Amino acid sequence: MSTTTFAAVSAVKQRCDTEFSVDLSPAWTIGGRPNGGYLLATIARAATVVSGHPDVLAASAHYLRSPEPGPAEIEVEVLRTGRSATQLRGRLLKDGVPQVEALLTLGVLGAAEPFWQDGVPQPEFGPFPEEPWGPDVLSSGIPIAIRDEIDVYFDRPLADGPSGRGELRALLALPGDEPFDPVSLLFAVDALPPATLDVAPSGWVPTLELTAYVRAHPAPGPVRVLHRAHLIGDGRVDESCHVWDSAGTLVAQGTQLAGIRIG
Amino acid sequence: MSTTTFAAVSAVKQRCDTEFSVDLSPAWTIGGRPNGGYLLATIARAATVVSGHPDVLAASAHYLRSPEPGPAEIEVEVLRTGRSATQLRGRLLKDGVPQVEALLTLGVLGAAEPFWQDGVPQPEFGPFPEEPWGPDVLSSGIPIAIRDEIDVYFDRPLADGPSGRGELRALLALPGDEPFDPVSLLFAVDALPPATLDVAPSGWVPTLELTAYVRAHPAPGPVRVLHRAHLIGDGRVDESCHVWDSAGTLVAQGTQLAGIRIG
Repeated sequence: MSTTTFAAVSAVKQRCDTEFSVDLSPAWTIGGRPNGGYLLATIARAATVVSGHPDVLAASAHYLRSPEPGPAEIEVEVLRTGRSATQLRGRLLKDGVPQVEALLTLGVLGAAEPFWQDGVPQPEFGPFPEEPWGPDVLSSGIPIAIRDEIDVYFDRPLADGPSGRGELRALLALPGDEPFDPVSLLFAVDALPPATLDVAPSGWVPTLELTAYVRAHPAPGPVRVLHRAHLIGDGRVDESCHVWDSAGTLVAQGTQLAGIRIG
Repeated sequence: MSTTTFAAVSAVKQRCDTEFSVDLSPAWTIGGRPNGGYLLATIARAATVVSGHPDVLAASAHYLRSPEPGPAEIEVEVLRTGRSATQLRGRLLKDGVPQVEALLTLGVLGAAEPFWQDGVPQPEFGPFPEEPWGPDVLSSGIPIAIRDEIDVYFDRPLADGPSGRGELRALLALPGDEPFDPVSLLFAVDALPPATLDVAPSGWVPTLELTAYVRAHPAPGPVRVLHRAHLIGDGRVDESCHVWDSAGTLVAQGTQLAGIRIG
């Protein structure tokens, strides 16, 4: 496992008020392109710097292009600063060309204890294996550099083939067991392979839109992730993601629409 | 029921390439403020005019302020035009002050028949009443002008009090049974009262973020809507929304994060 932390690969450098530079890591890539949640997290890091509020509450990204790793620019614009929230626009550019556009709402995360919950999935996570990832059944030839960075322990071997449910359940750890924070949770909701792998193999499943809600500060330790496909049709799939911390608190929720060629 | 169509109240007028004017209807309001899905739909109408692709596939909005009805401005910016999709930024302003910021992906909606689905809610809609809305238990004094515009038939009387499940199920019709389209589906995913009403009464539940995916062109006729709260905590609630057309096809999915004071 790599010793380069997520904090390091998602770090941004402020060049002026609203402009930042970032060095997109070639290690956090699939098929040579940075993971979408990772890209959104770098925008969120920049947003956090200029925001009057510390914690990402909601982030929505539309993916225009899939940049190569290396130096990139981030621009943020504060849209409104209110008493309880700061709302921002953020964009990631490569050589001046927009790659990811995002809107973010930042606030203050408080008590983790929910007042009420119902209809939140309550997955039975099976026992996790001792070794992450398991046999390589993911790639269909696509190089998955990010496998050397994060540890993903599926509770059901992918090598067993699709269950047909469109559901992946896994324990997810950052390099060196770095604790998650609201920004790295934006990566967590997009960290697993496409849940459609549990339906049928397909090619590249590019994210069109990703929305994440952060609900609580995560306790230290790895997180449990439920990644689920719901409807595949007309060349697109929607996937939901739920993330629980080591204390069992639901800390993040994600939804995405992605393109897919399948069947 | 009003005879002013949704197409009319969401109509936009192009002032120049990327600038539009809109007249926000005082009739499509709750507590004197336009419904959030309605506001997003007006932005989508403008986006559709400048887009190289006709159909909204995904839209994400962050709500900065809650404008009064009346004249407003919409600005759109094409971020990227690709072969299969046009991606845009859109914002609604009142007297030059930004109110709603949105990102949109437009494409071409094709076959309605899904390739695969699982884990999509399959609610049992009970019999719908003959009269919409039923006894007024919603308002807690808030004037709900939109009640005279849309017909909402709950399959369980709200007057029965909260079931505790955080779930509202209803048939939804536009004025004059105007057929839904991809743009008005953006309204449909935010048309029902807060699903938290089925947990406990509360004050205003302002939407912070709303994301909608349109999955198919809806068949003519009213739509069935499942609106569900999942987790209330730390002053916020996430709600999901599923919309089926009269043929039983899942045509839109929505998720939102809203503020709430409850308990």
